[in-house]
Amino acid sequence: MKEGFADRLAQASAARGSCLVVGIDPVIERLPREIAAIVGSGASAGSGFTARASAALGLFSTRVIGAVADTAVAVKPNTAFFERFGAAGWDALLETCRAARRAGLLVIADGKRGDIGSTAEAYADAFLGETEDTLGPWVDAVTVNPYMGTDSVRPFIEKAREGAKGVFVLVRTSNPSAAEVQDLDSGGRPLYLRMADLVSRWGTDASGSSGLSSVGAVVGATAPAEARAIRELLPRAMFLVPGYGAQGGSAEGLRACFLPGGRGAVVNASRSIIFAHEKRGGDWVVAVREAAMRARDEIEQVRSAT
Amino acid sequence: MKEGFADRLAQASAARGSCLVVGIDPVIERLPREIAAIVGSGASAGSGFTARASAALGLFSTRVIGAVADTAVAVKPNTAFFERFGAAGWDALLETCRAARRAGLLVIADGKRGDIGSTAEAYADAFLGETEDTLGPWVDAVTVNPYMGTDSVRPFIEKAREGAKGVFVLVRTSNPSAAEVQDLDSGGRPLYLRMADLVSRWGTDASGSSGLSSVGAVVGATAPAEARAIRELLPRAMFLVPGYGAQGGSAEGLRACFLPGGRGAVVNASRSIIFAHEKRGGDWVVAVREAAMRARDEIEQVRSAT
Repeated sequence: MKEGFADRLAQASAARGSCLVVGIDPVIERLPREIAAIVGSGASAGSGFTARASAALGLFSTRVIGAVADTAVAVKPNTAFFERFGAAGWDALLETCRAARRAGLLVIADGKRGDIGSTAEAYADAFLGETEDTLGPWVDAVTVNPYMGTDSVRPFIEKAREGAKGVFVLVRTSNPSAAEVQDLDSGGRPLYLRMADLVSRWGTDASGSSGLSSVGAVVGATAPAEARAIRELLPRAMFLVPGYGAQGGSAEGLRACFLPGGRGAVVNASRSIIFAHEKRGGDWVVAVREAAMRARDEIEQVRSAT
Repeated sequence: MKEGFADRLAQASAARGSCLVVGIDPVIERLPREIAAIVGSGASAGSGFTARASAALGLFSTRVIGAVADTAVAVKPNTAFFERFGAAGWDALLETCRAARRAGLLVIADGKRGDIGSTAEAYADAFLGETEDTLGPWVDAVTVNPYMGTDSVRPFIEKAREGAKGVFVLVRTSNPSAAEVQDLDSGGRPLYLRMADLVSRWGTDASGSSGLSSVGAVVGATAPAEARAIRELLPRAMFLVPGYGAQGGSAEGLRACFLPGGRGAVVNASRSIIFAHEKRGGDWVVAVREAAMRARDEIEQVRSAT
């Protein structure tokens, strides 16, 4: 069987004893002082601001990547924090993805895109394509929003298959108001289980040598019962688990996401790692490194008991 | 009452006798020959491709805007078609938004973004903020995906309110598989009506001098019965109506979206206008211009009979 994204992620995770994904969600206001200095004072006023802000984001992200390269298995840059600075921000996003790959990390581009057929093809090309000077060649997997149904997701899955890459479909997210929509009763079952059914169907042919499917699911650590029910419907899907740490996800929530034997899930932590310097004096890179090691160890403890 | 986005859109629409929104969804393969020549041969191979492709997209979009400036009320560039070329594509997207505003058109950025609180704030900043050299100053409204609930939409609504701008929430989309998710029975009512309830709640305070709310809904022309039911729940929301033309939406589908008196909706057409040259010889800009006039007139006929 051909090796797919899920296989590569599982292998990398086993090899380095880590399920940690570091979310790269930088905001200017929380950058370490030495990096923020690049942006200068006057905040958003004045010409050249987006270029300076993007340079700061690129440098920060690259140094975070250096600090977590042997601790994490992947990074997950979120497009929002880069595209707020326009084209210059997209350059910093590309720089970030490149730096991560060169450091031996897998890259999950967190864009949560979703649109109809021909437009979804364009997005799939943007994130999973092979065009030089775009994100595609440096990205291993993307997140997608399934509200528009199969024809908004299928183009991502097809493009992912071509390049042995992956797709994580939002199923049950970790934010407080997720329940408002995703838990709605849908013919006797919550919407997130209907979505899990769709993910199961979409991922039928996407399993590789590890038995895990490269059509994965985003399932928050903040809702253990929901995660357990989704796991039952998706015994082969790789889970991307946000919400651990800053958002209050519990060890129980994590356990519900792993398969027996502690396989099949990677766990994201963003702000608790990249802004670790806020709670600790000294070198900020060391703070990031130590926070990543702590998170990895905590997650490993939960995983090894699953 | 303060003038909001919905008021400006309604006024512009009344003033020029047009509800037409032209969707800017350019793909290299369908550009007129003289524009495609900028990209050169060899397609995606070779360095500088994204710069050349983006230059072609920018020029094409700007000329389309010139051709429809007195016929349409707004343009709706879709981010997918630009970000597939990375940072250079984002520059072309900015150029497109600027050109549209300078031509007196309103700009609806079709990004269908959706993410949790702090990330949604970053997206809102990207599309509705005031930072120089970003899209924000040139965009009047955005589309958002509500699968993650209130806290994924609220930051957009707040940012929109600050700048008297607008938000269109995906409620019932026009694509074939929309029904698969959006029509799911949710406690005795389809999901799209649950979503309409949320849009109604989110838009409570967003009505301006026209009585129309700047928290609008995306409702496809391809599903008349669904549109009628949504309209009943949202008597104040501005509708952005895709699916007319190339996607097979009917006059009946359109009628269901307008309020009595033919108010409260704008209608998007993309490929049938911007690629009009494919079905017609001669000057491609003339073809675009005539297709836009035809679409405007067809829509006006339906509207005036509502």
